[in-house]
Amino acid sequence: MKLYLAGPDVFLSNALEVGHQKRIMCQARGFEGLYPLDNKLPEGEAAIFAANQGLMDKADAGLFNLSPFRGPSADVGTVFELGYMAAKGKKVFGYSNDGASYAARAVCSHGPTVEEEGVLRDRNGHMIERFGLTDNLMITEAVRSSGGFCLAKAEAGEPKLAAFSAFNACLAKIRGE
Amino acid sequence: MKLYLAGPDVFLSNALEVGHQKRIMCQARGFEGLYPLDNKLPEGEAAIFAANQGLMDKADAGLFNLSPFRGPSADVGTVFELGYMAAKGKKVFGYSNDGASYAARAVCSHGPTVEEEGVLRDRNGHMIERFGLTDNLMITEAVRSSGGFCLAKAEAGEPKLAAFSAFNACLAKIRGE
Repeated sequence: MKLYLAGPDVFLSNALEVGHQKRIMCQARGFEGLYPLDNKLPEGEAAIFAANQGLMDKADAGLFNLSPFRGPSADVGTVFELGYMAAKGKKVFGYSNDGASYAARAVCSHGPTVEEEGVLRDRNGHMIERFGLTDNLMITEAVRSSGGFCLAKAEAGEPKLAAFSAFNACLAKIRGE
Repeated sequence: MKLYLAGPDVFLSNALEVGHQKRIMCQARGFEGLYPLDNKLPEGEAAIFAANQGLMDKADAGLFNLSPFRGPSADVGTVFELGYMAAKGKKVFGYSNDGASYAARAVCSHGPTVEEEGVLRDRNGHMIERFGLTDNLMITEAVRSSGGFCLAKAEAGEPKLAAFSAFNACLAKIRGE
């Protein structure tokens, strides 16, 4: 089974090495990991987009690193790809280095909050979803309705953003171990 | 033409009113706007997801409010939907209340930055994409390759997050006005 490996890992200074490690972890469990930088950085925005799209189209399912990135939510590039693969009817899985709920992170990053008629609002008056989910409802429900799952584990290793522990646990769970 | 109206507008305290106004603006230009809260808030996460998915499937194209939300990027729920509709081969358009580049916002929210071998890195050492785009490359390229466009306008009115000026300019441009 070919797994597309999406995530903000591509922004790490050792992005190529992280991708290499994740592909080896896939191989150890009988999966083939497709990592964006496998394409060796094509030139230009349109070429990068087309290369990533090509990998997604080739993959049977997607593993998405939903670790918070520059805010309380996952990286938007990763989330775009999750939407893309879910729409193609493929199974999508999420993993993260943070077990807190989205609401807990938003309270922390965008407080002080107020509660009005049972609705929690951030410092700008914007509602904070309080479903106890790990991120925006559209993300977690897309994962669930595709037949996948989300999984979080604190990351002891480096780089934290790679979320190797949760990634590995995700692979094991897909294998039914 | 039916347009799906995606955005963080649904988190505003006057979300219903904003949706109503946007639908009227659509109507004035001969479009039918489909706004998530048209579904009158179904109960439960799965029902909300299914309702939004149903609206996206019904729409001919999508208008995405990509105004920055709780960080330098667009709302992840909106971006998920952009990925979903792009994958379905529909035309997608982006509009925003902020004309700055993603890089400029990330430098501001996640500085101090350093430059290493021509690569800009945020305070966590994570690369900042410097294509001069309004958001992550996957978003802007999906819009472009669908045949759509992105458009930004500073918002003088309230609520700023609704980005009414950019929304209206987007409708006019689609009409070829």
